[in-house]
Amino acid sequence: MTLNSYPFEDEKEENSKPIGRYPVPYKKDLPFDIVELMEEMERTTGFLPNVFKVLSYRPSEFRAFFAYYNAIYNKETGRLSKADKELIIVVTSLRERCLYSVVVHSALYRVYSKNPGLSDQVCINWRKSDLSAREKAMVEFALAISQADDITEDHFKKLEMHGFDREDAWDIATITAFYAMANRLVHFIDIIPNKGYYSLGRNNDTKQIENELTAPEV
Amino acid sequence: MTLNSYPFEDEKEENSKPIGRYPVPYKKDLPFDIVELMEEMERTTGFLPNVFKVLSYRPSEFRAFFAYYNAIYNKETGRLSKADKELIIVVTSLRERCLYSVVVHSALYRVYSKNPGLSDQVCINWRKSDLSAREKAMVEFALAISQADDITEDHFKKLEMHGFDREDAWDIATITAFYAMANRLVHFIDIIPNKGYYSLGRNNDTKQIENELTAPEV
Amino acid sequence: MTLNSYPFEDEKEENSKPIGRYPVPYKKDLPFDIVELMEEMERTTGFLPNVFKVLSYRPSEFRAFFAYYNAIYNKETGRLSKADKELIIVVTSLRERCLYSVVVHSALYRVYSKNPGLSDQVCINWRKSDLSAREKAMVEFALAISQADDITEDHFKKLEMHGFDREDAWDIATITAFYAMANRLVHFIDIIPNKGYYSLGRNNDTKQIENELTAPEV
Amino acid sequence: MTLNSYPFEDEKEENSKPIGRYPVPYKKDLPFDIVELMEEMERTTGFLPNVFKVLSYRPSEFRAFFAYYNAIYNKETGRLSKADKELIIVVTSLRERCLYSVVVHSALYRVYSKNPGLSDQVCINWRKSDLSAREKAMVEFALAISQADDITEDHFKKLEMHGFDREDAWDIATITAFYAMANRLVHFIDIIPNKGYYSLGRNNDTKQIENELTAPEV
Amino acid sequence: MTLNSYPFEDEKEENSKPIGRYPVPYKKDLPFDIVELMEEMERTTGFLPNVFKVLSYRPSEFRAFFAYYNAIYNKETGRLSKADKELIIVVTSLRERCLYSVVVHSALYRVYSKNPGLSDQVCINWRKSDLSAREKAMVEFALAISQADDITEDHFKKLEMHGFDREDAWDIATITAFYAMANRLVHFIDIIPNKGYYSLGRNNDTKQIENELTAPEV
Amino acid sequence: MTLNSYPFEDEKEENSKPIGRYPVPYKKDLPFDIVELMEEMERTTGFLPNVFKVLSYRPSEFRAFFAYYNAIYNKETGRLSKADKELIIVVTSLRERCLYSVVVHSALYRVYSKNPGLSDQVCINWRKSDLSAREKAMVEFALAISQADDITEDHFKKLEMHGFDREDAWDIATITAFYAMANRLVHFIDIIPNKGYYSLGRNNDTKQIENELTAPEV
Repeated sequence: MTLNSYPFEDEKEENSKPIGRYPVPYKKDLPFDIVELMEEMERTTGFLPNVFKVLSYRPSEFRAFFAYYNAIYNKETGRLSKADKELIIVVTSLRERCLYSVVVHSALYRVYSKNPGLSDQVCINWRKSDLSAREKAMVEFALAISQADDITEDHFKKLEMHGFDREDAWDIATITAFYAMANRLVHFIDIIPNKGYYSLGRNNDTKQIENELTAPEV
Repeated sequence: MTLNSYPFEDEKEENSKPIGRYPVPYKKDLPFDIVELMEEMERTTGFLPNVFKVLSYRPSEFRAFFAYYNAIYNKETGRLSKADKELIIVVTSLRERCLYSVVVHSALYRVYSKNPGLSDQVCINWRKSDLSAREKAMVEFALAISQADDITEDHFKKLEMHGFDREDAWDIATITAFYAMANRLVHFIDIIPNKGYYSLGRNNDTKQIENELTAPEV
Repeated sequence: MTLNSYPFEDEKEENSKPIGRYPVPYKKDLPFDIVELMEEMERTTGFLPNVFKVLSYRPSEFRAFFAYYNAIYNKETGRLSKADKELIIVVTSLRERCLYSVVVHSALYRVYSKNPGLSDQVCINWRKSDLSAREKAMVEFALAISQADDITEDHFKKLEMHGFDREDAWDIATITAFYAMANRLVHFIDIIPNKGYYSLGRNNDTKQIENELTAPEV
Repeated sequence: MTLNSYPFEDEKEENSKPIGRYPVPYKKDLPFDIVELMEEMERTTGFLPNVFKVLSYRPSEFRAFFAYYNAIYNKETGRLSKADKELIIVVTSLRERCLYSVVVHSALYRVYSKNPGLSDQVCINWRKSDLSAREKAMVEFALAISQADDITEDHFKKLEMHGFDREDAWDIATITAFYAMANRLVHFIDIIPNKGYYSLGRNNDTKQIENELTAPEV
Repeated sequence: MTLNSYPFEDEKEENSKPIGRYPVPYKKDLPFDIVELMEEMERTTGFLPNVFKVLSYRPSEFRAFFAYYNAIYNKETGRLSKADKELIIVVTSLRERCLYSVVVHSALYRVYSKNPGLSDQVCINWRKSDLSAREKAMVEFALAISQADDITEDHFKKLEMHGFDREDAWDIATITAFYAMANRLVHFIDIIPNKGYYSLGRNNDTKQIENELTAPEV
Repeated sequence: MTLNSYPFEDEKEENSKPIGRYPVPYKKDLPFDIVELMEEMERTTGFLPNVFKVLSYRPSEFRAFFAYYNAIYNKETGRLSKADKELIIVVTSLRERCLYSVVVHSALYRVYSKNPGLSDQVCINWRKSDLSAREKAMVEFALAISQADDITEDHFKKLEMHGFDREDAWDIATITAFYAMANRLVHFIDIIPNKGYYSLGRNNDTKQIENELTAPEV
């Protein structure tokens, strides 16, 4: 596909440390549909998130993972904003101490919430943070799912008090459950976050980035 | 698709209690590919597992879920037998007290291991069970993934001592991570196991069933 | 006492693995009252439960253990059925991961409840099981005793709502406390369940067995 | 049996608070063997421990309880001194926060160890206490039994390093298991310690008391 | 300052074991203000508490520690009696298994409460003890602070039901927080309690001691 | 002291929410030494940290708190850099979910470490972070102190392997213990971080700020 077989630009910068425990395939050796998805991703974010590189080690699982992600994250209906979805991912990934997922999704949460201070608070103690009562109810439900609690009608009533119906509950639960899987894969493969995420959403150029972030970001 | 709109035979028998918290769609209203998969499933198992009915409420997520399952469970390479895979699912789902997953997969473990007593032991205390040292090492690793532990090289070394290479480790981790997601969806939707599972693999007809169980069973 | 000094029929079948950590005495060396109790037990169950063999290592403790068991299990008054008592033992022994006690008493629970599926559910997650509200209240109280919680009047009120009076509370507490002791002895001696228990109560011959099970079974 | 039907001298003093949750029978209504054991007990200790009064509510369980206690506590062989046995009871009962058992047996431990300061240390943090390495090994094993840990050969090896053989291990385990039961009964019945225990073993008259304490004390 | 350079009388008696992990400075080498405080302390208690000796290793921290202690313990306003303050210290130090603090402050609690039996109960299970409802509310609040719980208005309401206003709440919180620090310093330095504390407040001479105990005691 | 009695500039901006649960005194009503310390603080940081305002409610405790802080934080000897000290505070305050302390000290850690990404990693999972082995050893020891673990010679040996001697151990322990106290006071008073901290150490002006930060910052 290319004379230059070295896989990904970003990796050159951080070559002191591998981005995961398994070898990352050369771009030229990857199936076409995977490269296509990667290139689209790289265009929107400005760099290719390491999870794409790492999971391409097993193309059929790569496809299944991103197809699932797409089915639940890019769903067009429901009351969950992009900021809501990122908040769910941040809080439940923190519970699992998942460095990769929290670095990536707290960055996206800063972008969508336009509130980096709030994102920092959430990483320390969401109960004490400036999240709204609605957001706290959503987070509390997501954590119940994350802990594999027995879910009862009480859980649904609390959500309804803040305007979330049963379809929203399903959306919160599905995103949480998907990241329960993702967090475990990250811990297993030991994926390192791209350096680009640390400053994302902290500067004044947030607005521009936000407009571009339309492709999946996992 | 059919004049008789009542969805699934099995449900009639257990009509005292809904099989999940969300409505189950009528078969006639489902997309063709989903009905096709359901009918194939029903032919092999003898009944349609409730998870198929329940997840059909959201067709795109249904497709993503079973495609992912298929990519990791029906993979043809590697050292994990079907009994191994079911054992992983049983032990990690027990950790989450997931009634549906343990009833279903302990049944399949009985079928594939041909050892119902061992399956019962595993449900009580796998450390005290008659599992082999190899199986115990596999279970221990699966539980580390299930608990979202920080995975280190030590984990891989212990697996290698029992003949599992890095590809096997990936398979164990992926199945465990997928069921971390599935267990949470089950708790959320409150899926009830089909009655047929309780006796599966306990009778002398196990051999026949085993031959038929080639389609995915989640 | 007998020409054939080899102690117990059942042991021959499972000679690959000792039934406990301490030596099992020869039948001919045991005091007469202990042999008598063993033979009665063997007649009713069809085999001699391993706990009898193992505890005979210390005859005076053997006598104390079974006399105590008899005083609380075979009490003729009160509202606890045999199925209730076995349910209490199963759930509290599961909390201690006691393989022997759960294998034995889940078998007896299958026999007395005539519901093997329910017994399997209870071993996975009793809260999600088909136990009645009355049985769940009983189990909840037994678990409070098992955890050595501070017991308050609230505990008694909850029992009363389901028809259990203070004498029944005493019975639940005593059985639970006795098995707190028994579970620890089992873990210490590492007693292995007799193979006969795994299938007990799963077949159609349950009714016959049930009639015979009148002697103590620990 | 007596004109004066009021049961026990000691109770008069502490009449502000019942000694347990269940009614204490009148002495005149109790079976002869139970009264006999009580009177012997009262002669040696100087007062009747409340557990005797409270358990007499169910005579057959009273007999089973003290017969069992007698079989394991007053055993004449083995390396465990009376101080050792009391130490085991104190530490494992503390784990269950059992006020009655700790008050009673820390008193007896003071009497037998002749070291009230050591008894106080043990009630706060036995690891930091002046217990000998031998005593700490014994306590560590007792706690493993108390927690219903899976016991392995390692546990036995650690005991052997301090001179405890397999018979001693059995003695430690049995006393611990018996008090696992007793602690739960105490929590259930809410037994209050006799006031006499608080000062026992703290004064110079310890020697005399020690000589008299030959009857069972539970 | 003195020809006899050996630091403290008390230490001679217990010379088998060092009173802490760091060297104790010679009295002659200590700054004058520190010696002065020590001598005052020794006059009132009859011996010099080991924490004074041990912390003098770093004079500036010694001064900061006792100045802080003095500011919160010897405050003249508020509803907390000396017994209340000692009770707070005992219960929260028990939570941290801090042998030194519990030995010292349970002794002082015996002195101020004039109730050694109550002090012993508190060391075993304060919930089951004879503490008043007011004292239990105070202890419950102190434990919430000790556990670094998120404190809410509910905590204050419960205190108010027992007559504690917001100034008292501050006093309880400050003493608890200070001992959270002190307990960790004790664990770190491994300070051993003076032998004199074990019998303090147990004898009839309590009244006299109480009158003398006016200087700070940490 | 001033015609304008409204206490602190910063508070005007965030007037929607009180900075703590207790009233903040007017500057004019405060003792001179406290105002002096506050003004010095304000000059260096650019704003007055809320902990100063809040603790001034009790002047004698304010003085004790900052004197203690000063004795341990501004000590001139030892191997701990300012970045080390801030790292200790961040990690142990995270364990207690102390929003105020983590916001403030992660800001200062960014300033002194000149590595905002590292600070963010530490807030998520320090074990997976890019901290050096030396820093991880220091953090591990600080967490042992924070958890009130029994400290043994093993802890010191691990520190020594990374060049920390017993004086450094004392410094780590003291800072940790002091913040165990501070975290509990923050939870109790519910102190809100100044907005200025969120961006501190994230911009290019860090170098300048760092030069100015010489006064105590708690």
